[in-house]
Amino acid sequence: MNFRCELKRVVDDSYDIEIGRRLQQSLIADLKSGLCGRVKKFAVVTDSNVLGLYAAEIAGMIKEAGFSAETFVIPAGERSKTRKMKEFLEDSMLEKGFRRDCAVIAVGGGVVTDLAGFTAGTFGRGVPFVNYATTLLAAADASVGGKTAVDTPLATNLIGMFNQPRKVYIDIDCWKTLPERQLSSGLAETVKHACLGDAEMFAFLEENIEKILRNDPAACEYIANKNCEIKYKVVMQDERESGLREILNLGHTVGRAIETVSDYTLLHGEAVSIGLIAQARLGRELGFISPENVDRTEALCRRAKLPVTIPEGIDRPQLLDKLYTDKKVRDGKLRFVFQKEIGSMVCFGGNNFGKEITREQIGRILDQM
Amino acid sequence: MNFRCELKRVVDDSYDIEIGRRLQQSLIADLKSGLCGRVKKFAVVTDSNVLGLYAAEIAGMIKEAGFSAETFVIPAGERSKTRKMKEFLEDSMLEKGFRRDCAVIAVGGGVVTDLAGFTAGTFGRGVPFVNYATTLLAAADASVGGKTAVDTPLATNLIGMFNQPRKVYIDIDCWKTLPERQLSSGLAETVKHACLGDAEMFAFLEENIEKILRNDPAACEYIANKNCEIKYKVVMQDERESGLREILNLGHTVGRAIETVSDYTLLHGEAVSIGLIAQARLGRELGFISPENVDRTEALCRRAKLPVTIPEGIDRPQLLDKLYTDKKVRDGKLRFVFQKEIGSMVCFGGNNFGKEITREQIGRILDQM
Repeated sequence: MNFRCELKRVVDDSYDIEIGRRLQQSLIADLKSGLCGRVKKFAVVTDSNVLGLYAAEIAGMIKEAGFSAETFVIPAGERSKTRKMKEFLEDSMLEKGFRRDCAVIAVGGGVVTDLAGFTAGTFGRGVPFVNYATTLLAAADASVGGKTAVDTPLATNLIGMFNQPRKVYIDIDCWKTLPERQLSSGLAETVKHACLGDAEMFAFLEENIEKILRNDPAACEYIANKNCEIKYKVVMQDERESGLREILNLGHTVGRAIETVSDYTLLHGEAVSIGLIAQARLGRELGFISPENVDRTEALCRRAKLPVTIPEGIDRPQLLDKLYTDKKVRDGKLRFVFQKEIGSMVCFGGNNFGKEITREQIGRILDQM
Repeated sequence: MNFRCELKRVVDDSYDIEIGRRLQQSLIADLKSGLCGRVKKFAVVTDSNVLGLYAAEIAGMIKEAGFSAETFVIPAGERSKTRKMKEFLEDSMLEKGFRRDCAVIAVGGGVVTDLAGFTAGTFGRGVPFVNYATTLLAAADASVGGKTAVDTPLATNLIGMFNQPRKVYIDIDCWKTLPERQLSSGLAETVKHACLGDAEMFAFLEENIEKILRNDPAACEYIANKNCEIKYKVVMQDERESGLREILNLGHTVGRAIETVSDYTLLHGEAVSIGLIAQARLGRELGFISPENVDRTEALCRRAKLPVTIPEGIDRPQLLDKLYTDKKVRDGKLRFVFQKEIGSMVCFGGNNFGKEITREQIGRILDQM
């Protein structure tokens, strides 16, 4: 006997991204007017750096508004993006009496928003969550698009889910408290966006990169908006990463591998910067980009104070092996995304255009870096 | 500045449930004709009991059909429904080179299908999965409806997700290898379905319960079909458990609590049986069910060889506390589902009809059991 379970439905995961300065009051007003439905109990998830800077204050404001709120703090850094830390959040929330009638407010950078979004997605089989992004990296990348995940010893971002937040707040004012190295790291995803989608933005960065590093208000606002615009365009067209969204992985094939092999002594953006350059150099060999534009990309990364060569101490054979455990590997073949010149177009490597990338080829590029 | 991310889309999670005997060939034929898309690599997830009985054979057949397959084995029993075991599956799959281009075939009972479905849902942010249900419990409950989850020390089924399988196979032939205690445990969810939705089915069970325990083909087929029919009707109308689906929790408020407090020495169905009786007795006090129908429910459970009283060694104050950590607790108030007489109608307790259930009231009912 056969039953057919008909489960066709319209899902609306639409949400707003608000970009501005000091958005705490806006968050509170939204919670009051039902952003998370009838939820009255909020888990403010943050890290040890952001707690004192912004998260404790936000939790206080939520309580003042008549809701209940508890803060849950993970150690700052990429090492916290683990299943263990997710378990810690779950157990802490359960101990504090959190059940299905709660929502999660992530306050912090990409690690916090990724981990909190994933935790919210499986807590009580899913509770609402909101991202309050305090870093440039989160603004550029993690807070938009609904990809949440944790790392495992064998692969980064491989365990996770697609989970859209109720709203994203990008508070540019918070960037002023970012250590210089973190700000640079965030710029890597910004440069990536320019490389893959917007030549004008690339030119703007070439003119204003030092201003951004000095936290110039107008320049920062420009890149916050541009980052969202580009990512949003791509995500809107391909939420579940069946094809187009893959272009956002520019620089990430090598980037993710080197981040893991460095044992997270490299920040995510630093690893992406190295990956961007590796991709550009490989793309030059394949005829996707001119030597001049490779140089421009490299020069921009340098000026953003990002590494463009593989640091001492990275085990190169291990790095090469790591590339082949990436979740994008299909049938044992590397998949690569390439920028085509600057900002105009992106091509796929791997099998897609009959240009197979061999282990020797990528090994040689890495040797030159 | 504000962006609106428009993410409205039609999702089709429809799937077939095939009920019959020896459905292995049907599974293989479906995989060949693209049930899991272009996937060629299958993770057969099973437990230590089912491996030798059915799962190894299925993995072999998948390989014979030209695909690649690996078996991943968890220890049999409810204790395996943990985040630790999910991590074990993930790490084993990663070690064996599984990435996003795979699918999961769950072969076993409710623990296997729950755990494998959840694991598939977050592996590479979601890969397809299929349930091959070998127990009555899985047939009655876990394999249909898309609820997947694991238990934590503080609550059962609280960490998980809604994740629909590509197809469910209910192989009645496998019930013959079920230990008697497991078959009885599976009958608890069957009795539950009759209580909440079908007086005729209840009468059938009263007439045929011994036949089912002897694995009579026609009687087993009848309940396999009926279970699906009832669960399917409810789930179709309320996939995400906003209201109606809650009626499937009949007997589970007390059931889940006692299962945890027993430290899983009680099987799930045994705990649900006790929960069913507790619910009926409480419902009698509230005027939802006549004393005669309480007796009929109790008699049927007894004949199914299910416990109807709280076993020695259960810490009753601890049980009462446990009730209040259930994920259904809202604003600290117990939520209960009640059968109204038999098979006709179900009411909600808690706040819903102005009948609040006090700690004293439920405590007294439990004391009498």
